Amino acid sequence: MERVVRHFQEELDALKSRLLEMGGLAEDRVRRSVQALVERDRGEIERVITGDEPINRLHIEIDGRCFKLLALHQPMAADLRAIVAAVKINTDLERVGDLAVNIAEAAGRYILHPPVKKLIDIPRMAEIAQLMLRDALDAYVRRDTTLAHRVLNEDDKLDALKTQIFRELLTYMLQDPSTIEPALDLVLVSRHLERIGDHATNVAEDVIFMVSARDVRHHAGDPEPDIISG
Amino acid sequence: MERVVRHFQEELDALKSRLLEMGGLAEDRVRRSVQALVERDRGEIERVITGDEPINRLHIEIDGRCFKLLALHQPMAADLRAIVAAVKINTDLERVGDLAVNIAEAAGRYILHPPVKKLIDIPRMAEIAQLMLRDALDAYVRRDTTLAHRVLNEDDKLDALKTQIFRELLTYMLQDPSTIEPALDLVLVSRHLERIGDHATNVAEDVIFMVSARDVRHHAGDPEPDIISG
Repeated sequence: MERVVRHFQEELDALKSRLLEMGGLAEDRVRRSVQALVERDRGEIERVITGDEPINRLHIEIDGRCFKLLALHQPMAADLRAIVAAVKINTDLERVGDLAVNIAEAAGRYILHPPVKKLIDIPRMAEIAQLMLRDALDAYVRRDTTLAHRVLNEDDKLDALKTQIFRELLTYMLQDPSTIEPALDLVLVSRHLERIGDHATNVAEDVIFMVSARDVRHHAGDPEPDIISG
Repeated sequence: MERVVRHFQEELDALKSRLLEMGGLAEDRVRRSVQALVERDRGEIERVITGDEPINRLHIEIDGRCFKLLALHQPMAADLRAIVAAVKINTDLERVGDLAVNIAEAAGRYILHPPVKKLIDIPRMAEIAQLMLRDALDAYVRRDTTLAHRVLNEDDKLDALKTQIFRELLTYMLQDPSTIEPALDLVLVSRHLERIGDHATNVAEDVIFMVSARDVRHHAGDPEPDIISG
């Protein structure tokens, strides 16, 4: 096997900057899908639905970089955790890209009907989810657990908005059955945004584990710190 | 750092059997959540909602095993791919466990209302999703890409059922607004089952990549076979 002599640290930095780029693409697609919904912009909806090629390419490239780093440099401890975290984060970001497509598809159906209501809470959910995503990735690159914990706390806001949106739309549907079909798509959009928040939460949890070798998922204790800590 | 001398292959086999166990738990929780919905069994619904401790513990344990294998044995090529695949599969199975909770929560709300209809397609979706999950894990353990490809093909069935369920429930809602609230929960259950199928699909894709070092995701070509192939 050919030996790659480039510095490990340089490759790891390149991996991190590619992950940030992927996060930027994912965030951008979420923003555009919700904007296209609000503005009832058929062309932009189509562009989001058909435009997942760059993010998919990056997903595969980042996965390849992680494998190369693991195979050629056999990293230990903190670096190992950073690379395994990158594998997971990469998966989460790719799913966020898929969810932007789901939002755009729902938007495509929604705009076939008259608007159910003025959309205020859905763009707010989108803003919160995008911010969570950005903060979670910043936390990864800066190894910042305080910021990661802040992401975890933001999730409650998304949950509250989702419930509020559901209650409100239910009222519309009960009052006027002609709103049922479009209102259902708004319910779905709010669920997709909630899941984007879940992915940001996953990233934040990976960051906390990576930095502290402590598993905050499921509120568990430290699994086996003597073996994998840095 | 303490050196672990146990055979690598033995540890890798233990990892695989724990993943199968985790798959079994996840599948069981999906089956029970849907059965509880069909039988309107409040007690069972509660048990699914509160019973995610074993799967969460296993999730953390498997993650720890993957880290130990990577850190202590510095595996190459095919073994490396198998362990990274295990990290991803572990995440997918944990999410399946979460989706069983989501199904049970929807069931808990659903049974507060009179039944909307006799549930036939939702249990069928559940059966397909469970089978996909089982086949995907079998494919992982047996390194069976034929079986993994079969899992990918099954996904269309779930999609068709989901659409059919949606159309049917929409008709109910339009005819009788009192069915809107419970019917919405059935729509959500069908989406959760679709997502379980998506997770099985992810596992199958990881298996194909692991065995052939060929990335079938996004229909891409072989990323860098000269560096990571076995």
